[in-house]
Amino acid sequence: MPFHETPRFPRGFRCAAVHCGIKAEGRDLSLFASETPAAAAAVFTRNKVPGAPILVGRELARGGRLQAVVVNSRVSNVGTGEEGVVRARRMGEATATALGIHPGLVLMSSTGVIGVPLPIDKIESGLPSLVAGLQDDPMVGAEGIMTTDTHPKAVSMSVGQATLTVVAKGSGMIEPNMATMLVFAFTDAAVDAGPLDSALREVVDDTFNMLSVDTDTSTSDTCAILANGLTGPVATDDFKSALLAAFTRVTELLARDGEGATTLLRVTVTGAADRREARTVAKSLVSSPLVKTMVFGGDPNVGRVLMAVGKCFDCTVLPGRIAASICGVPVLAGGLRVAFDEGAVRELLRRDPVDLEVDLGVGEGRARAWGCDLTHGYVDENAAYYSS
Amino acid sequence: MPFHETPRFPRGFRCAAVHCGIKAEGRDLSLFASETPAAAAAVFTRNKVPGAPILVGRELARGGRLQAVVVNSRVSNVGTGEEGVVRARRMGEATATALGIHPGLVLMSSTGVIGVPLPIDKIESGLPSLVAGLQDDPMVGAEGIMTTDTHPKAVSMSVGQATLTVVAKGSGMIEPNMATMLVFAFTDAAVDAGPLDSALREVVDDTFNMLSVDTDTSTSDTCAILANGLTGPVATDDFKSALLAAFTRVTELLARDGEGATTLLRVTVTGAADRREARTVAKSLVSSPLVKTMVFGGDPNVGRVLMAVGKCFDCTVLPGRIAASICGVPVLAGGLRVAFDEGAVRELLRRDPVDLEVDLGVGEGRARAWGCDLTHGYVDENAAYYSS
Repeated sequence: MPFHETPRFPRGFRCAAVHCGIKAEGRDLSLFASETPAAAAAVFTRNKVPGAPILVGRELARGGRLQAVVVNSRVSNVGTGEEGVVRARRMGEATATALGIHPGLVLMSSTGVIGVPLPIDKIESGLPSLVAGLQDDPMVGAEGIMTTDTHPKAVSMSVGQATLTVVAKGSGMIEPNMATMLVFAFTDAAVDAGPLDSALREVVDDTFNMLSVDTDTSTSDTCAILANGLTGPVATDDFKSALLAAFTRVTELLARDGEGATTLLRVTVTGAADRREARTVAKSLVSSPLVKTMVFGGDPNVGRVLMAVGKCFDCTVLPGRIAASICGVPVLAGGLRVAFDEGAVRELLRRDPVDLEVDLGVGEGRARAWGCDLTHGYVDENAAYYSS
Repeated sequence: MPFHETPRFPRGFRCAAVHCGIKAEGRDLSLFASETPAAAAAVFTRNKVPGAPILVGRELARGGRLQAVVVNSRVSNVGTGEEGVVRARRMGEATATALGIHPGLVLMSSTGVIGVPLPIDKIESGLPSLVAGLQDDPMVGAEGIMTTDTHPKAVSMSVGQATLTVVAKGSGMIEPNMATMLVFAFTDAAVDAGPLDSALREVVDDTFNMLSVDTDTSTSDTCAILANGLTGPVATDDFKSALLAAFTRVTELLARDGEGATTLLRVTVTGAADRREARTVAKSLVSSPLVKTMVFGGDPNVGRVLMAVGKCFDCTVLPGRIAASICGVPVLAGGLRVAFDEGAVRELLRRDPVDLEVDLGVGEGRARAWGCDLTHGYVDENAAYYSS
């Protein structure tokens, strides 16, 4: 399923981004809106110290209908207590008023510093120009929600007669680099809220939930989808396939743009006892600091691969059955290192992306995970910053 | 319980270290031996791809009696299949022959590169000079087992009339920096194998099992204790207290000497629902790349503390009850950032060690964990090396 060369919106969706003064400079307030109410679904971070917008967003998503998403950066509205919830609601209500729609139809997102009050007055005063600036290019919104991302992230594709567009940001998992993951998907396909929610959860589980830049789970992660139905129904399977393709692509964009990353790392695990174990092993490989530094260093270290498989204590691991390949070159068979052209593999490890495949040889479970290398850049970005 | 200024052995223990030719230069073969058989206990890595010495060592430890420990570096004898087990046994048997003792009394340990055959001939030919060199200074053995460690690690202390001596090495969790964790403890106190095993497991659970340099679990981790009884019995409580004090000290030495580390990080969690949850939260804090880079960067980032607590999905976390302090200065209360002197805390974060205390306010569970900061040095050591 090919993506459009230039991302574009489905029928009836527009976006805008302005500078309202939360940041010293640059756009810090963005809006995505449908001209009609849309069926909607959303999933949020499992972090147990979630931001106020997550608490309010969970309520809103339960209604299964949304028409707009308003997003600010620089201040995450996390760790702000009851007053944070009051301000999150005000942010949604003010946006609804500016758009002339019901406040229950506006999802709000905030990312940035934790523990600082949301500057709600600046947001409210920025809304009229935000609404006045609504336009057709999704890259404007993608750029508006960026923080430490090195480039805006948006993809769109056709699904039947309809269009699916996904806008995302994220680089590390948490402030203060204001780089928590936000993903907003829009379609003019007609999909009811129930099936939309099922499709979203299933696809997120195989894409964003298998992504790790640094194992640190943000307090603000949000992935929402709005389907305004303006183009009519599409086949459910086609829609889910499109959603999987688009989210997979965005997952790779996010991993590749991980803080300090120079390489996208894709791990495929096959032959696991079941899907759960395949996911555990894939996540272990993609999250291991020693595998990540091995990718950065460009060395085919089969010992680290064995180690990262073996530390999955609750999985069925029979050392004598493990096979592995790096960028398509077999490096392990029957649990033993096989002879391979090290120079050639070193060369392949210098390319982007790097693919690591592991077969556990014990069952039919399979999974993919996405990550990136661990570099000086990650240490630099996260050791030098502003937290207050 | 004060440690001896210069580490010394309990009665009847000696050690030696030689260069047998596995490394290009430097000592690569070490021996620790008691003049009489000793009650013994050992715990090993939970990694499911364990080294051959681990497989053989588990059998040996079941006997509850050991008299010597032989250790080589540079080649870990992991991922070497059946032949690896044969060579591990040969290493123990040859040592027993050289010492004139039963082969079931010799524990063998190997750390280093994975997937490379153990150079057993070199080890066997080095044994006569190793045995001939047995002497009284534990630092010789501590230096002999070093790999990427920046200094040898040994402590000793009195327990009643007896002595407890612990020798250890470890810096990262895995090859190729040959830095897996090995800990050998020796005492002339008379403790039976059963109580020795219980004490070892209990104390390891609160010390080494709460240590993380990089979350990557080695395939060779081993912690063994030998009690030769030459000085007679000591009170069980005194012995366990001494073991806890010594292992805590060694845990701190290992964490502080973590690959690339500049600072020891100590985390104390109180007020958790129970001990398991306290351990989970303490481990989450000490392992979080964003907390570790925050310590390296010297910035009091309360958001990262909240994040790392909140990502313990299976724990009882009530955001409004979380309190925290950094190096004794309160930074969070009732889940909200409190006013504090940031300059002063930045100054404290520049010292070594750094203490982070978190109270969850939901119960009586408490735990401590140890780690270190994440620095450029870690990336350097692990991105540039030799894996084959």
